[in-house]
Amino acid sequence: MAGSIYGKLFRVSTWGESHGKGIGVVIDGCPAGLELSEEDIQIYLNRRKPGQSKFATPRKEDDAVEILSGVFEGKTTGTPISMVVMNKTQRSRDYSEIASYYRPGHADFTFDEKYGFRDYRGGGRSSGRETTARVAAGAVAAKLLKTLGIEILTYTKSIGPIEIDYSSFDREQISQNSLYMPDSTAAERAGEYILEMMKAGDSVGGVAECIVTGMPAGIGETVFDKLDANLAKGIMSIGAVKGIEIGDGIAVSKSSGSVNNDNFVMRDGKPSKLTNHAGGILGGMSDGSSIILRAAFKPTPSITHEQKTVNKSGEDIVVSIKGRHDPIIVPRAVVVVEAMTALTLFDLILENMTARIDKIKEFYNK
Amino acid sequence: MAGSIYGKLFRVSTWGESHGKGIGVVIDGCPAGLELSEEDIQIYLNRRKPGQSKFATPRKEDDAVEILSGVFEGKTTGTPISMVVMNKTQRSRDYSEIASYYRPGHADFTFDEKYGFRDYRGGGRSSGRETTARVAAGAVAAKLLKTLGIEILTYTKSIGPIEIDYSSFDREQISQNSLYMPDSTAAERAGEYILEMMKAGDSVGGVAECIVTGMPAGIGETVFDKLDANLAKGIMSIGAVKGIEIGDGIAVSKSSGSVNNDNFVMRDGKPSKLTNHAGGILGGMSDGSSIILRAAFKPTPSITHEQKTVNKSGEDIVVSIKGRHDPIIVPRAVVVVEAMTALTLFDLILENMTARIDKIKEFYNK
Amino acid sequence: MAGSIYGKLFRVSTWGESHGKGIGVVIDGCPAGLELSEEDIQIYLNRRKPGQSKFATPRKEDDAVEILSGVFEGKTTGTPISMVVMNKTQRSRDYSEIASYYRPGHADFTFDEKYGFRDYRGGGRSSGRETTARVAAGAVAAKLLKTLGIEILTYTKSIGPIEIDYSSFDREQISQNSLYMPDSTAAERAGEYILEMMKAGDSVGGVAECIVTGMPAGIGETVFDKLDANLAKGIMSIGAVKGIEIGDGIAVSKSSGSVNNDNFVMRDGKPSKLTNHAGGILGGMSDGSSIILRAAFKPTPSITHEQKTVNKSGEDIVVSIKGRHDPIIVPRAVVVVEAMTALTLFDLILENMTARIDKIKEFYNK
Amino acid sequence: MAGSIYGKLFRVSTWGESHGKGIGVVIDGCPAGLELSEEDIQIYLNRRKPGQSKFATPRKEDDAVEILSGVFEGKTTGTPISMVVMNKTQRSRDYSEIASYYRPGHADFTFDEKYGFRDYRGGGRSSGRETTARVAAGAVAAKLLKTLGIEILTYTKSIGPIEIDYSSFDREQISQNSLYMPDSTAAERAGEYILEMMKAGDSVGGVAECIVTGMPAGIGETVFDKLDANLAKGIMSIGAVKGIEIGDGIAVSKSSGSVNNDNFVMRDGKPSKLTNHAGGILGGMSDGSSIILRAAFKPTPSITHEQKTVNKSGEDIVVSIKGRHDPIIVPRAVVVVEAMTALTLFDLILENMTARIDKIKEFYNK
Repeated sequence: MAGSIYGKLFRVSTWGESHGKGIGVVIDGCPAGLELSEEDIQIYLNRRKPGQSKFATPRKEDDAVEILSGVFEGKTTGTPISMVVMNKTQRSRDYSEIASYYRPGHADFTFDEKYGFRDYRGGGRSSGRETTARVAAGAVAAKLLKTLGIEILTYTKSIGPIEIDYSSFDREQISQNSLYMPDSTAAERAGEYILEMMKAGDSVGGVAECIVTGMPAGIGETVFDKLDANLAKGIMSIGAVKGIEIGDGIAVSKSSGSVNNDNFVMRDGKPSKLTNHAGGILGGMSDGSSIILRAAFKPTPSITHEQKTVNKSGEDIVVSIKGRHDPIIVPRAVVVVEAMTALTLFDLILENMTARIDKIKEFYNK
Repeated sequence: MAGSIYGKLFRVSTWGESHGKGIGVVIDGCPAGLELSEEDIQIYLNRRKPGQSKFATPRKEDDAVEILSGVFEGKTTGTPISMVVMNKTQRSRDYSEIASYYRPGHADFTFDEKYGFRDYRGGGRSSGRETTARVAAGAVAAKLLKTLGIEILTYTKSIGPIEIDYSSFDREQISQNSLYMPDSTAAERAGEYILEMMKAGDSVGGVAECIVTGMPAGIGETVFDKLDANLAKGIMSIGAVKGIEIGDGIAVSKSSGSVNNDNFVMRDGKPSKLTNHAGGILGGMSDGSSIILRAAFKPTPSITHEQKTVNKSGEDIVVSIKGRHDPIIVPRAVVVVEAMTALTLFDLILENMTARIDKIKEFYNK
Repeated sequence: MAGSIYGKLFRVSTWGESHGKGIGVVIDGCPAGLELSEEDIQIYLNRRKPGQSKFATPRKEDDAVEILSGVFEGKTTGTPISMVVMNKTQRSRDYSEIASYYRPGHADFTFDEKYGFRDYRGGGRSSGRETTARVAAGAVAAKLLKTLGIEILTYTKSIGPIEIDYSSFDREQISQNSLYMPDSTAAERAGEYILEMMKAGDSVGGVAECIVTGMPAGIGETVFDKLDANLAKGIMSIGAVKGIEIGDGIAVSKSSGSVNNDNFVMRDGKPSKLTNHAGGILGGMSDGSSIILRAAFKPTPSITHEQKTVNKSGEDIVVSIKGRHDPIIVPRAVVVVEAMTALTLFDLILENMTARIDKIKEFYNK
Repeated sequence: MAGSIYGKLFRVSTWGESHGKGIGVVIDGCPAGLELSEEDIQIYLNRRKPGQSKFATPRKEDDAVEILSGVFEGKTTGTPISMVVMNKTQRSRDYSEIASYYRPGHADFTFDEKYGFRDYRGGGRSSGRETTARVAAGAVAAKLLKTLGIEILTYTKSIGPIEIDYSSFDREQISQNSLYMPDSTAAERAGEYILEMMKAGDSVGGVAECIVTGMPAGIGETVFDKLDANLAKGIMSIGAVKGIEIGDGIAVSKSSGSVNNDNFVMRDGKPSKLTNHAGGILGGMSDGSSIILRAAFKPTPSITHEQKTVNKSGEDIVVSIKGRHDPIIVPRAVVVVEAMTALTLFDLILENMTARIDKIKEFYNK
């Protein structure tokens, strides 16, 4: 599995299995001089912590992060930042049953196909718990972005068939309901929908939306390392994401040029777009308006509802997956989307510094 | 613009501007021993050639490819393969007008923001003509995949509001209508729709769909280099794509676990999925069923329909973009989607060879 | 400091400062199925442990490694392997003096120039202690190489003016004298030389030599990722190395083609070289004979001998660096050279698997 | 052969075989705004052109470079720069003999081992002609460095046993004798030595030395991407190089700390080194003094002197390699060493811009 490193200049290397000794990440390429404390990271980790509502697994995961290197006297030194969240309670439950068959919708089958065997305890490396490391690294990237005036707002846009109503959009609501929806009415209805599905032993999907403000124009490297291309990779690499949209997304396929093109006008002495169908990205580069992206998450694959599958002896069987699983992935994944967005943006912001020789000369005072 | 290299082991480096001397690509890491001729590449290039129908620009681009290195006595040698398509007719029309303002929906503004100036002739590097190089490289990757029994089928799934009817799916149709739709009725209706929009000086969007058969299971590197993550990047890097879906895509957000999970059953002595909502990818690795992906393309931004924009003197102006532009991008982009898919798949197929020490020992006869 | 990741397919990401909480490494891309225990790593770490002789610092560093992830039921799973060596005793001595000036021969000045400040405790990230992480990762690579029949032998070739005598070469001696020399007479004389220099408050340099046997032919990727080029980078990245030689090394510059060319003869039914001036590498690829490389290490820069330098107030001062420092770097660095060689070789051995389409087809049973 | 791409931010991708259609390079990541013409490149290419003296092959290679992309109105645009040198005269001589056996000291054997066959015409990809592409790219990097005040001086330091005398060092001489030696007396003696060896059907080795002035301090990324480590890779990747030295190089192994450490003193208000044994690099970062490196080249392997080898039928044979070969590699390789140095330095100079958050904020005017 050679895929646990992300980024070109701001590179993160994650490790850890669901039920191993811990989860961690090393950041290589973090600029020196950023004030950074464990508290900065913990705030982000707490947003994905389970056990915080009736819509999330009641499992207790005390995700306390520890910074092991790269920070000296409260500031990043430019050397690698190693962060770990140790698994306090290594669960010793019996996994022999889960080890014996392939759970539908999970990576059990593909892991066995690729590696010949797998760490079957709680999903091992393919567990959602892996995202803890992304969030820890993303917290650092987000703090770096903030020093440049860039803010990321992420929330649940829809759960099953229930969507937020933008006319009731209330940013404050996001942290006030356990579904991270910016619309209390939608959140309430979504809660009822989830409970209903849970009773049926089923699970639900949803959509997370992410808005980035304060981005300078010109960030992104065409042709292949376009801002939207890199974002698509980062977001799609989150387990359970099956669709990505930038700006109007899939809907552009039914639109027309005269509607979809964002016209320019002069505003405050500089070119500005009248609309933002493009979601803040033109030709793979940020255009100075807000970046808008959405990720569609599939329903949690672990359900008590009976499913057909096969076991390792090659027999057809019927299973009902017990255990404390989230009935929906989106609310806890909101911060993961934010983390991947932050990691992707900051990396390209660094690369953009090398785009022009006049600015390089200025940088080196020549 | 440090973004013109794609891939990790099978790496392609593209170059060229719309109205420069030519377009080309260098492939580094192509395995030795593949029979390869210019004809193999030309077949793919011809699929994106303009001037082939009333729905495509009548511009003549005689895209004749030449292989400059890496092939000896009809076979790849393992050394870099350099391919070029020279621009036979370097157009000398007057670009002073287009140079003076920012076309809505184009990269003119962002290029200027990033680099301080731009090659304004026909869009320069941000022109769709850049994809010629991707297609040339993709043709090589596709031929390599075929030797492994892997086939990619790509076609237009929808144009504006007109979708193909899967019950009338006819694979032969794809190459028989100029819209590359596998449904002649839909193609006819789509053609009428496009003509109507063209009359209004407008353009239309659409969706390309891609099906990969014959993929072995286990391809893809979790966590970040998941098969779907890398595909998302590759496809989203194509200009004009604003949304990507794998399998059921965005629709999974409204589904439930009991419906969306693909159950396993034994078939021909091995685990097989009863359905394919997942689009052939579980946990970021291929699961042995067909890979399904879709790309949503925005309408062509160049339209004669009047649009507001600003010029370099900072004045608000109204423009109508003349010239021979495709009224829709999708049909000519179908082969580009196929190329990016081929490049992405083959690269991960190579990396997968290093996943297990027992297979490495076998490889080296130890 | 974005330079703490090494490798393309077998990638290691190291972290940690001399006097921080610990030192560690994450390996991304380790093949699944290798039997691996902490003992496998510890054996290598013990070879660089200080306090083992009168020629090494008497500091006690109990370098006990812990594997945190990537190993399940005694075997690597293919997921990232995280290893740490925690610093048991975080020394709290006063570093205010060392923080106030630039030690000659150290990275104090360049760190400050690059980052504006530095973790001055014991050299921080530029301490030789950083190599602990390289050795831990190298131990894994070496074990992988052994499963392929590849062995690496590394030893001290010279210390100051004292060189080993190849006619007395005794492999067993390497682990039996604290200088890791394969010649007991030379070791004895070198020991006396070091003691003499220590008395003068001075330090000495030396050369480490590395011999790799069992390498298959064809490993290495020309043009830039040649086997010798990558080895040169890996070895030169070890602090204090100022020269690298492959085979006859620098001496080839005084040789002639008729002497330096290794002639081929048939032996055991295949081409074999009569000599090995090339050090096992032709055209950047292994040629089937032993790989031979040497690294020249500078004398330990920390000496009690008086030196001129400047302090942070911009004053010229004279310093004498106290503390428990090795009078020579080479003996403890022998295992570091071995580790970097192992990491470099295994990475290219993986990449080589993708060189030919016929072998790829065979791998995938097509 | 996946090794023809070099660099991280300023990336070059080279292609071409000795007797193929041409040789070329694509630069991805060249900053926009550099004035660049074909003449800028040609000056460098002419320095490695054959047929310029009696010590170089009398072959005529009219290495005229053409820029195909990335330059608009005389300036780089930030998009990939594609450059080619077409082979004007594709020689059609009979290579059947050379194809039938393995030339000692060449890559014939290892190519066959790796790929199963090879382009045997004139060495194919392993020919020294491959360096044409490096030099073209290096010319661009060198021009970028010059805008930052950084100059590279490279010359022949020794040929066989004849070394230059530094007390007679005359920079003007370098371009005035065909051996590129900065000492006319040494050049004369070296010329005689070469002629003598040529008469014996033999060839000679030598050393190239490179001095970089004007480097800002702090360039280089520890731990693995140290300035010296990356230089070692770049230089060792040049065919025929068997040893690399930084500063005092191998000699440091016989030195002592009190001699080898460069003391600091205040000069012009800032810390400055009294000596430069370190060759301008401390802890893997430039220290503000001149960078000094040397590369040892083996004698040209193609000699008329009789050699033993084996043919493809597995027979021991004796060969005498005819043809117009340089009796020494160094003089024509001097500009190649300069090119690889320029490529390596500029890449790290770009990466260094991302080292500090305060400078990043300044860059983005925050």
